[in-house]
Amino acid sequence: MKNVAIIGVGLIGGSFALDIKEKYPESVINGIDTNEAHIDEAISLGIIDQSATINHLKEADLVIVAIPVDASLNYLPQVLDNIGENTIVFDVGSTKEDICVKVKNHPNRRHYLSVHPIAGTEFSGPKAAVKGLFKNKTNIICEVEETAFKLQEKALDLFRDLGMRIRYMNPKAHDKHIAYMSHLSHISAFMLGKTVIEKEKNERDIFDMAGSGFESTVRLAKSSPAMWTPIFEQNKTNVIETLDEYINNLKHFKSLMEKDDFKSVHQEMESTNHIKQILNGIK
Amino acid sequence: MKNVAIIGVGLIGGSFALDIKEKYPESVINGIDTNEAHIDEAISLGIIDQSATINHLKEADLVIVAIPVDASLNYLPQVLDNIGENTIVFDVGSTKEDICVKVKNHPNRRHYLSVHPIAGTEFSGPKAAVKGLFKNKTNIICEVEETAFKLQEKALDLFRDLGMRIRYMNPKAHDKHIAYMSHLSHISAFMLGKTVIEKEKNERDIFDMAGSGFESTVRLAKSSPAMWTPIFEQNKTNVIETLDEYINNLKHFKSLMEKDDFKSVHQEMESTNHIKQILNGIK
Repeated sequence: MKNVAIIGVGLIGGSFALDIKEKYPESVINGIDTNEAHIDEAISLGIIDQSATINHLKEADLVIVAIPVDASLNYLPQVLDNIGENTIVFDVGSTKEDICVKVKNHPNRRHYLSVHPIAGTEFSGPKAAVKGLFKNKTNIICEVEETAFKLQEKALDLFRDLGMRIRYMNPKAHDKHIAYMSHLSHISAFMLGKTVIEKEKNERDIFDMAGSGFESTVRLAKSSPAMWTPIFEQNKTNVIETLDEYINNLKHFKSLMEKDDFKSVHQEMESTNHIKQILNGIK
Repeated sequence: MKNVAIIGVGLIGGSFALDIKEKYPESVINGIDTNEAHIDEAISLGIIDQSATINHLKEADLVIVAIPVDASLNYLPQVLDNIGENTIVFDVGSTKEDICVKVKNHPNRRHYLSVHPIAGTEFSGPKAAVKGLFKNKTNIICEVEETAFKLQEKALDLFRDLGMRIRYMNPKAHDKHIAYMSHLSHISAFMLGKTVIEKEKNERDIFDMAGSGFESTVRLAKSSPAMWTPIFEQNKTNVIETLDEYINNLKHFKSLMEKDDFKSVHQEMESTNHIKQILNGIK
């Protein structure tokens, strides 16, 4: 792992860069980003060693594509056009079906591994990069069989060295499940934030009455719209399905309240309480 | 603050007990709880000094009522019937209008202060009690003018010693705003948990794909149904209003996705992003 290129030096790309530099001190990290300020920032923060372009990928051992999923869809084929014989490329996007279809017939398809590390924060940009972000996190790999075995190994060694837990899944199943486990949470948080902001125009009230519960539930509403809009677009069908179910559950809860059926309201909450045990499993 | 009675030795009552014992080491903390196991647990955890009954309240300097809001409504008048001349009583419930109405004409109304500390976690019972829970937290006091000045002072001294920030509000306004800032978050989390659990019957999938984002958004779904059902019941009108607005916002977001209007989807998220600045104010 000597020559590494990070395309998109934000939260995820930058965090990979920091961990790679720590695990493989001999590596040179090249940063590629359309945002010049981010490149400068990433260099001054010690995240990347130097700026590079797509023409420098021939020598790369590893290329990580960590840009919004719409940009990945456009850019990944060009990346694959420009790599060398021993280069492994992986993306880290939150949608996997469209991108797998996109490169299905690319002559260098076997150099690409479709990856989704379930890791992140609500922040973005190089400053958001943190060491150890991927430790003990799940990393979902799609269509592993489409990647050359020797090249797979390089990526898998990295994931192991970073402490990640690997799960294999097909892209369709990934996109369906992740709509429930991640995409819906973001919309629920954004709309909670919207509902409260609309009502509490006097922000002093929000400031005073918001507790840690509200803060936790609305946290994802700080996320980057530039990152999330194309995710919702690419996973439209699944996300709409989750929204339908979520809205129906909320309506049902409301109707129980309207009917003064608080026994059932209690039941609704009680039967969801075992999320405790499920979440304890994550830790 | 020598003789203190805590009615309900759970998360909130227990946390008050721990802080009071630390700030006023000479105090004796009496615990009153219908759950005998909780009394035993609270004694063995050093949260309370001894068990007591409502007949011991005559000598109390301070009585804290920290039980579910339906129980408070029934029990507070009896508490007020049994106190002494110098006793101040406050409750800590998340709804304030019903309880203020309930004791409006009680002969000892001036011994009661209506309080809502915006503090807590998703856990419950004596084991959930923690020191310093109230430090830098907002404490909302309703109808302060209905409490005898000398007795107010005792409670306010305690709140100051525990590091709380006081805000005064009328019960109607409290219940309306808190529906947005707290009650809605709980329902949004419970229904998110329900939606995901219903879909992901195979819990292994949840376990594998849940990230910190989902965990944060769904955290409040671990909360106690026994505590939350009567809150929703007492604050029914306000909570239904917040649900209507939340559901409408979710439907609107869904309709934008259905129309492929991702420019507006982006806008929706962007205009909610300033929740960042608002939440930074909380810290």
